[in-house]
Amino acid sequence: MTTTSAMHPQVAAAEIPPVPLTVEGYSVLHQMMRFRWTEWRSLPEATRRSIADEAGTALAEMEKNSNGQSALYSLIGHKGDLMLVHFRNSFADLNQAELKLAGLRLSDYFEPTSSYLSIIELGLYDSTIKIYKELADQGIQPHSDQWKAEIECQLARHREAMQPRLFPEIPQTRYLCFYPMNRLRGEDKNWYTLPIDERARQMTEHGLVGRRYAGEVKQIITGSIGFDDWEWGVDLFADDPLVFKKLIYEMRFDQVSAVYALFGQFFVGVRVPAAELIRLLGGELPEQAS
Amino acid sequence: MTTTSAMHPQVAAAEIPPVPLTVEGYSVLHQMMRFRWTEWRSLPEATRRSIADEAGTALAEMEKNSNGQSALYSLIGHKGDLMLVHFRNSFADLNQAELKLAGLRLSDYFEPTSSYLSIIELGLYDSTIKIYKELADQGIQPHSDQWKAEIECQLARHREAMQPRLFPEIPQTRYLCFYPMNRLRGEDKNWYTLPIDERARQMTEHGLVGRRYAGEVKQIITGSIGFDDWEWGVDLFADDPLVFKKLIYEMRFDQVSAVYALFGQFFVGVRVPAAELIRLLGGELPEQAS
Amino acid sequence: MTTTSAMHPQVAAAEIPPVPLTVEGYSVLHQMMRFRWTEWRSLPEATRRSIADEAGTALAEMEKNSNGQSALYSLIGHKGDLMLVHFRNSFADLNQAELKLAGLRLSDYFEPTSSYLSIIELGLYDSTIKIYKELADQGIQPHSDQWKAEIECQLARHREAMQPRLFPEIPQTRYLCFYPMNRLRGEDKNWYTLPIDERARQMTEHGLVGRRYAGEVKQIITGSIGFDDWEWGVDLFADDPLVFKKLIYEMRFDQVSAVYALFGQFFVGVRVPAAELIRLLGGELPEQAS
Amino acid sequence: MTTTSAMHPQVAAAEIPPVPLTVEGYSVLHQMMRFRWTEWRSLPEATRRSIADEAGTALAEMEKNSNGQSALYSLIGHKGDLMLVHFRNSFADLNQAELKLAGLRLSDYFEPTSSYLSIIELGLYDSTIKIYKELADQGIQPHSDQWKAEIECQLARHREAMQPRLFPEIPQTRYLCFYPMNRLRGEDKNWYTLPIDERARQMTEHGLVGRRYAGEVKQIITGSIGFDDWEWGVDLFADDPLVFKKLIYEMRFDQVSAVYALFGQFFVGVRVPAAELIRLLGGELPEQAS
Amino acid sequence: MTTTSAMHPQVAAAEIPPVPLTVEGYSVLHQMMRFRWTEWRSLPEATRRSIADEAGTALAEMEKNSNGQSALYSLIGHKGDLMLVHFRNSFADLNQAELKLAGLRLSDYFEPTSSYLSIIELGLYDSTIKIYKELADQGIQPHSDQWKAEIECQLARHREAMQPRLFPEIPQTRYLCFYPMNRLRGEDKNWYTLPIDERARQMTEHGLVGRRYAGEVKQIITGSIGFDDWEWGVDLFADDPLVFKKLIYEMRFDQVSAVYALFGQFFVGVRVPAAELIRLLGGELPEQAS
Repeated sequence: MTTTSAMHPQVAAAEIPPVPLTVEGYSVLHQMMRFRWTEWRSLPEATRRSIADEAGTALAEMEKNSNGQSALYSLIGHKGDLMLVHFRNSFADLNQAELKLAGLRLSDYFEPTSSYLSIIELGLYDSTIKIYKELADQGIQPHSDQWKAEIECQLARHREAMQPRLFPEIPQTRYLCFYPMNRLRGEDKNWYTLPIDERARQMTEHGLVGRRYAGEVKQIITGSIGFDDWEWGVDLFADDPLVFKKLIYEMRFDQVSAVYALFGQFFVGVRVPAAELIRLLGGELPEQAS
Repeated sequence: MTTTSAMHPQVAAAEIPPVPLTVEGYSVLHQMMRFRWTEWRSLPEATRRSIADEAGTALAEMEKNSNGQSALYSLIGHKGDLMLVHFRNSFADLNQAELKLAGLRLSDYFEPTSSYLSIIELGLYDSTIKIYKELADQGIQPHSDQWKAEIECQLARHREAMQPRLFPEIPQTRYLCFYPMNRLRGEDKNWYTLPIDERARQMTEHGLVGRRYAGEVKQIITGSIGFDDWEWGVDLFADDPLVFKKLIYEMRFDQVSAVYALFGQFFVGVRVPAAELIRLLGGELPEQAS
Repeated sequence: MTTTSAMHPQVAAAEIPPVPLTVEGYSVLHQMMRFRWTEWRSLPEATRRSIADEAGTALAEMEKNSNGQSALYSLIGHKGDLMLVHFRNSFADLNQAELKLAGLRLSDYFEPTSSYLSIIELGLYDSTIKIYKELADQGIQPHSDQWKAEIECQLARHREAMQPRLFPEIPQTRYLCFYPMNRLRGEDKNWYTLPIDERARQMTEHGLVGRRYAGEVKQIITGSIGFDDWEWGVDLFADDPLVFKKLIYEMRFDQVSAVYALFGQFFVGVRVPAAELIRLLGGELPEQAS
Repeated sequence: MTTTSAMHPQVAAAEIPPVPLTVEGYSVLHQMMRFRWTEWRSLPEATRRSIADEAGTALAEMEKNSNGQSALYSLIGHKGDLMLVHFRNSFADLNQAELKLAGLRLSDYFEPTSSYLSIIELGLYDSTIKIYKELADQGIQPHSDQWKAEIECQLARHREAMQPRLFPEIPQTRYLCFYPMNRLRGEDKNWYTLPIDERARQMTEHGLVGRRYAGEVKQIITGSIGFDDWEWGVDLFADDPLVFKKLIYEMRFDQVSAVYALFGQFFVGVRVPAAELIRLLGGELPEQAS
Repeated sequence: MTTTSAMHPQVAAAEIPPVPLTVEGYSVLHQMMRFRWTEWRSLPEATRRSIADEAGTALAEMEKNSNGQSALYSLIGHKGDLMLVHFRNSFADLNQAELKLAGLRLSDYFEPTSSYLSIIELGLYDSTIKIYKELADQGIQPHSDQWKAEIECQLARHREAMQPRLFPEIPQTRYLCFYPMNRLRGEDKNWYTLPIDERARQMTEHGLVGRRYAGEVKQIITGSIGFDDWEWGVDLFADDPLVFKKLIYEMRFDQVSAVYALFGQFFVGVRVPAAELIRLLGGELPEQAS
């Protein structure tokens, strides 16, 4: 079914890989924990201050880390009192951040309730199809050394161009919404058996909705296949949390979400700068910085 | 496939957005907790009274809050002993309410078991279709600036007219029933891929059942997409809890419930005014105020 | 498809409501709890006796309550050590029973593991169809005031006639089996979209199996839509627990169970009269009263 | 559709009950528990010995019980450290065994993690069909008194003949594998709506696989419909645990397992005779008795 | 459909068993646990050192065990702080390793959160088909004594040849990813009812993807049917954890994964040599050995 020219023997369409290319940035860890208010309140005022100072100082450093920041949120509801988000250069650095926190005296009052391990990921559906077709046109066999080299070369260019989105600072919005998600692999409806062109089309449609909220919400997608229990983790940052509902509700009618999206737990928190930690531990939610 | 008149170039039906418009009111937090009776009973009588007085005073203030009330319920069964419902102007205010409670001495005897974060929401299916059609008839492109402005103008009018339902007081009934729910996105039956006209028709049919119980039960619907683990939270208020069963059972035969409704946990509680908290903590359920 | 006579304009069959009528009796609460044997055994003998006496006295009163009894069971397996079943006139009375138990010193040794809130319910499938048809034949519009009055009048008659089954004493058998259940709302097989005649037919078939065990097992059905996480709770009382398996296994082949029944957890307990509580707390299961 | 002879009016095939006959033996309880090693190790050596002696003596008696034995296993993995299996003549006797254990000082170091309540059951698919057909040929109406008497008479004969399999000793193998299971009641594939002949055929095929492992593994099937959260519990006893995998993997390709089997948690333990309990509590797994 | 020669009466194709042959190696236990940092930090420095030394020494021995090694990982996230992987010659040896750990003073600071019991397994799909066909061609009846002897003889040869893969050392990479998985037995898509040739074809396709990552990741497959709650456990070892995502994402588009793979929880850890345990317990993740 494929014709072969003398110059460029074509690669059969069926051999075009179904896997979209991705580029990755920071490793990311979300830590959710309860705070033992009863035990905390039973401490003398001076001890509380000293413990909070130690933690505030450590957190302030992490906030300014040039190799990946950390940020603290006050969670709403029983899933946790606090959420820490860490961006780092490696999983080992994330683990070291956990160990550092576990070493703070404040962590005697933490009870871990959940967590999520992932890595900032940009999916390149459109570029993938373009690259695969060019390489096929050039008669380069998928997964051959040349093919891999060409693709790595393209990915390197994307990584370079997308550097600010792969290694971002943590946005300074008042609210954060985090949730993990999967693509459906049902008996009848299965994302992973759709042709790559169809997946790309649906992702483009999906992206159009997101763009309508560009000024109101910042979205960071992280990949977690092989790292945690869902395939992706999504962070939405906004000053008005109503936007989380509007955006996600509107997206739920996209084909890719309506049919193929499965969602885990949702966590919503209010940003607390390290400098305000002591106020939060006194029972007062800091005002929004203006 | 679309015809264009000189005056009003028509917008293709397929481009009419599938998303129903909504207006939102109070932010809402449900907090369910166990009460540590054993530790509580081990306190001296005077200490118990002092702790209960502090909590009763704080709760009485929240009950009368003009910017959104709180209410206390004695839960039936092991899912919790107490449930607090908070209506507030923002998620930050809800978080501050949580922190305030966590600061009460009484909360040393609380163990959070569950919670739910949502926002009072009125869905406008019928108005949505009407507005979308009018804007299409005027040839206004969906998601254009003009389209957005026109819709925002309509929503503002609805918010104004529905102010009392968006920012209500907490009804003073003896019983509350709370549960979260989703609309089904099955492989074959999927609410989110139905045409908006069909969804509107089913919601209207559903509403007719609700209206039959108008005098017996008050219903407050809250939206939680992007906030918590289900799509909506439902609060039913009634003096006779049997009405909860009758209403929900009758609705379960509506197409929208029979086919498309998924339900989470149900919580049923008896209202306890702040002034009666001390009696409840003494093991006595207050009589119904008449 | 319907003919209209001059005298009685007929109501269209499609307008016959799909909801079966029910009558309700006692409110019911099941409480499952672990018993802290280690802490209990560490108490001095006299303290244990005093605590057990207080609890035994309270429970003995509840057993004889003329407004709804309570009964105690020793549960088998790790789901709990004890189960209390309360029949009462209202949910508030159930909540008050919980509070009373929580006030006993013995409850310092209780850890709640589960519970179930429901109300004794008799479903009237056959009468429903008969009543609906009669009212339709009389041309009375469903949900009109007259229709509601006629139905309420019929229900009142059923409540009167079924009084002993709606407000029963707790059967004095050696064993109790409790489990909650739902009717399936699958994408293809959906109980709630079946015609009411078909549901009535299947329920009748189901009832025939139950009748074969009439002398060996007593069944109490409670409705829990709007109250707890399943739609119904079932209590089976028998002196030989093997009958639980025989009855439920035989029923599982009925169409209504094979296709439409979903089951929750099963709890099996041995009845312990209040007078024998102290013996149970000494580690000895009372003999069956003869 | 059925012909009626003068002598034996035939019973319609459609009326042949779908329920396979079963005979039952010992009541069975599996108890899984964690052992509090930290607290245990903190005891003085003499106290440990005294506590272990008390428990060892009680367990040794249970091992030799002529009315149903008990056996102890050291579980592998976090689901528990110990598993006790009790065979008894009644559920009340099982509950008494639980209470007896709860009364041992050693049980201060137990934390129940799981359990399973069931009864040894032999399914008689082939005999059932034979009996049903004979009774139908004799024109005896299903569920008539005569029908019930004839069946009870047949079952009594089976109980007599199968006595050793219904009331067995606990096999003395090194390893035990326990798991609960269900038969699928899916929307499309439903075990309980298959004709009894087809179910019998699949069970026979299934049994052939089991017979290939006759010398290597001993299997005890227990029924738990109406008793616990799954329909059956399976115990496999072997000296080489690899046989568990081989047997279950081979069976998984049988139609009855491939299509209709659902599995719960698997528990694997190493047998520890009562006489070796003290060694186990010292951290040493006893050698296999030869 | 089969012809029978005088010499070799052929075995019917339908009788060729559907079960792929496997060979097994080390028994494997994964243990995940939380570490009680608060209690640990409250110990005097000298006590911590002494406890850590005892544990480090025991672990160092296990690392060098010639009958199956153990390895320690620092887990990322709330699923646990530490993971121990044990390779041993038998399940009893695994249980003894658990008991040995439980006897260390350090284990006073462990809380088990999860575990997994399995056995190293090499599936022989291609060889299976070849062997089954040869035996069928020779007219040897499946499951006859001769058939079993011939197969055992073939398996012995495979075990011999694959000895290093069945009894490997634990790879010395920086990162480990562990997850359990099942093959789908859906109502429509069912791995276990596919013909063995089709399963073999899909497994071969699946293997091709794995081979592309040969230099970057080492994979050990363990079988757990009959041992734990999933059918297989997968360990991936790599120095760059991004490879876990790339490999598993690419595989997810294979038919055997896209349609038939179900995944459990994912655990990702950083290798910590026994000699570095004391450093880890001081809150510092050891550098990667070079």
